[in-house]
Amino acid sequence: MTALPSWRESPARRAILDFVARVTTPGQPDFVDAADRIAVFDNDGTLWSEKPFYVQGLFGFDRVRALAADHPEWHETQPFRAVLENDMETLAAGGMEALATLIMASHAHITTDDFATIVMDWLRTARHPRFGQPFDRMIYQPMLELLRYLEAHGFRCHIVSGGGIEFIRTFSQATYGIPPEQVIGSSITTRYQLIDGRPALMREAELDFLNDNAGKPVGINRFLGRRPLAAFGNSDGDFEMLEWVTAGDGPRLGMLLHHTDAAREYAYDRESSVGRLARGLDEGPARGWTIIDMAKDWARVFPFD
Amino acid sequence: MTALPSWRESPARRAILDFVARVTTPGQPDFVDAADRIAVFDNDGTLWSEKPFYVQGLFGFDRVRALAADHPEWHETQPFRAVLENDMETLAAGGMEALATLIMASHAHITTDDFATIVMDWLRTARHPRFGQPFDRMIYQPMLELLRYLEAHGFRCHIVSGGGIEFIRTFSQATYGIPPEQVIGSSITTRYQLIDGRPALMREAELDFLNDNAGKPVGINRFLGRRPLAAFGNSDGDFEMLEWVTAGDGPRLGMLLHHTDAAREYAYDRESSVGRLARGLDEGPARGWTIIDMAKDWARVFPFD
Repeated sequence: MTALPSWRESPARRAILDFVARVTTPGQPDFVDAADRIAVFDNDGTLWSEKPFYVQGLFGFDRVRALAADHPEWHETQPFRAVLENDMETLAAGGMEALATLIMASHAHITTDDFATIVMDWLRTARHPRFGQPFDRMIYQPMLELLRYLEAHGFRCHIVSGGGIEFIRTFSQATYGIPPEQVIGSSITTRYQLIDGRPALMREAELDFLNDNAGKPVGINRFLGRRPLAAFGNSDGDFEMLEWVTAGDGPRLGMLLHHTDAAREYAYDRESSVGRLARGLDEGPARGWTIIDMAKDWARVFPFD
Repeated sequence: MTALPSWRESPARRAILDFVARVTTPGQPDFVDAADRIAVFDNDGTLWSEKPFYVQGLFGFDRVRALAADHPEWHETQPFRAVLENDMETLAAGGMEALATLIMASHAHITTDDFATIVMDWLRTARHPRFGQPFDRMIYQPMLELLRYLEAHGFRCHIVSGGGIEFIRTFSQATYGIPPEQVIGSSITTRYQLIDGRPALMREAELDFLNDNAGKPVGINRFLGRRPLAAFGNSDGDFEMLEWVTAGDGPRLGMLLHHTDAAREYAYDRESSVGRLARGLDEGPARGWTIIDMAKDWARVFPFD
């Protein structure tokens, strides 16, 4: 069986195979012990689709709609009103600040267990507006093959996302085969408390850590205490992660997925409000990073293709 | 070969063997998949000795002495002056606040790589004042056997310490066989930055997270996203960790090490400023937790005994 069957013969596929051979062939100068074979993957736009909008954002919008009956004031308050009126223009104009407000209101004041249940229920019923698929099927077949290929060569693969750690953990095992302890992400504060005498972890409306941009190397170091060998991303939010990983000694692999495929998925980069990729395209190649061209390099995009 | 050879036949040893048999015997009602077999261990006073004082505190004192030439003001400022004059009474009176001040001054303004080098150098030369041993040999042989016994039965063992995560990670693999990604601890803020064009993580003099008391369940949930099956501690700082772990469904194991052995190690509990254990002794047994009596239950304390 050929390795990485959904990857066309390309510089990207060749870069992966060469790198893995270099660090896993015993007796070779670049051989790396299995304990240090760590690969990190961004999630939105790298493992699954982030268009037309971040999946967790869509979850937050639906959650605001579900909670609106208890919050009559939201009909008069932005950015809630924009969600309830499906006013995407106002929402987009509100930027990350509006999104953060919605995330806090829709993700907090609830225990971690209840939050996980709500996310899993939502994932069972919500559908992608263009493809009509559950969001946890909007994942990239070539990246699934890459996860398994690296694992077969002794790597541990970690998700390192700007998205919420507890959101991703609800589906990472079933969707990607990545267990919850191998997910690193942004977080809101949780507080230990007794509810009717039983211990619970309550999610508070307070940002704990933003695992994006320069936060990604910080998050990886906090969770793993090691510098990974390989990093995969798709936006400028992954720039510092790739920079830190590929600055390590010995062979390192840094790859950025360029969304070039309007027909099978989406085409976007410099001007996109979601998953903006500009600096990575400009500086990546000179830094030795490989740009994956989705349209050219992937024979297949989604498992359902 | 007998399991846990340094544990005398005792209710504590029996509780461990019974628990492991229940959750690892296929076909039995309490069988637990290997992925969920997680055990958490406090470090200070549970895996290694914390008397006469926390090892990391002693490191901090030595580091203040080493840095004092660059800080003439410390000779006139508490708690630094107390360290430089070996005035343990003033230091003890300063409590946790004085210790925090010393930790910030002695652990920050340095990259994570440089910090690790300094800790490892210190561990090579520093000696325990009573036993004359390197501190990373002041570890409990019965607990080492317990770590290996649990691993042999499919458990992953994590350290969950109030001490500094980056301090413990410098020796956890060599000393306990626990890799850095299985260490959870307190942290100061680290910031990603370029130094002469090379990426580095700089340690800042700012508390990021205090992984003690109610912080322990929060820290475990953040790092693992699962509730462990078994928890081992020795002080009231471990109370909430044991409470949360043993409140889970199915069989759970909670154990507290009671330091009762002034001859071979130390005897302390309710009145100790280090590793105080009072509530755990009072409430633990009724909660089904097992108290390990060091003097009675352990045939051997240290590997060098």
